[in-house]
Amino acid sequence: MLGEASKAQLAARLTATHSEFSGVPPAWVHVIFQEYPAGNGFTAGEPAAAVALTLLIRSGRSGEYKRDLLTRIWESLQAATGAPDDQIVIAILEGAPSQAMEMGKIMPDVDPSRH
Amino acid sequence: MLGEASKAQLAARLTATHSEFSGVPPAWVHVIFQEYPAGNGFTAGEPAAAVALTLLIRSGRSGEYKRDLLTRIWESLQAATGAPDDQIVIAILEGAPSQAMEMGKIMPDVDPSRH
Amino acid sequence: MLGEASKAQLAARLTATHSEFSGVPPAWVHVIFQEYPAGNGFTAGEPAAAVALTLLIRSGRSGEYKRDLLTRIWESLQAATGAPDDQIVIAILEGAPSQAMEMGKIMPDVDPSRH
Repeated sequence: MLGEASKAQLAARLTATHSEFSGVPPAWVHVIFQEYPAGNGFTAGEPAAAVALTLLIRSGRSGEYKRDLLTRIWESLQAATGAPDDQIVIAILEGAPSQAMEMGKIMPDVDPSRH
Repeated sequence: MLGEASKAQLAARLTATHSEFSGVPPAWVHVIFQEYPAGNGFTAGEPAAAVALTLLIRSGRSGEYKRDLLTRIWESLQAATGAPDDQIVIAILEGAPSQAMEMGKIMPDVDPSRH
Repeated sequence: MLGEASKAQLAARLTATHSEFSGVPPAWVHVIFQEYPAGNGFTAGEPAAAVALTLLIRSGRSGEYKRDLLTRIWESLQAATGAPDDQIVIAILEGAPSQAMEMGKIMPDVDPSRH
């Protein structure tokens, strides 16, 4: 489990990466750590400190954008956790902008110049 | 973090809203609060009591249905938590009805008269 | 809440089922239990020990594959938890293989002979 300083540092880095990639203000980026006690995580059916990051974004980004973003996040996540390759999994989940709400408003489409 | 009574009240309201919108029995609506301690939530890279609600529904609803539902849920969530606009995010995730199982059965398609 | 042995047994069974169905090595299967205290789960707006399993897979599997997988997982989940039918919900969420990263690599497409 990461210490308080490590979580803050990782959250700051993920936020900066995501904001830079997407062209949206940092205030649109939320990071939540859902920790679990030993005995609740498994890889290959054996107890393990599996690190799973699910990234929820608006649909409309190109494949290249998503691959580059995943690679950058992987590096930050592995640097922060020290987890080996077989204990990390990252997935992007997408939803139409019209299916999400932030700042009290239905979200706008992605900026076509930053996809 | 919400107290026990506030969570029960919010769950009841979300369930009523969702059941009314979707035309499905309340027993098909499940609400789970995944709380986290201070230091695990971040907005704009800074520690924050971010409120993230992910709504998992069957695909097949119209854009108008989803926008109206989001707006109603936002109001309930903000009334219950008192969180400012920049600390709330709500996203709808969809899956084909055939990809979900409830009551021991693969889920039926959405009622075309209630979309 | 499941005991340590029950969680390990369920994780082993889910991993074996998923690996057998998908044709991927068990090391690609991660299981995480996100427990919650009494008072945080609701069904039909009333406090309940709702069991929600979200399964995140690569897109590209057939409808039959997904229905069979859901049915098998339902059986394992109900056997392990003893939860009644109205307290279990299982949903498959999909993402393009190019949107996920594991073992340090962007994920490959699904094996067309195992869909």
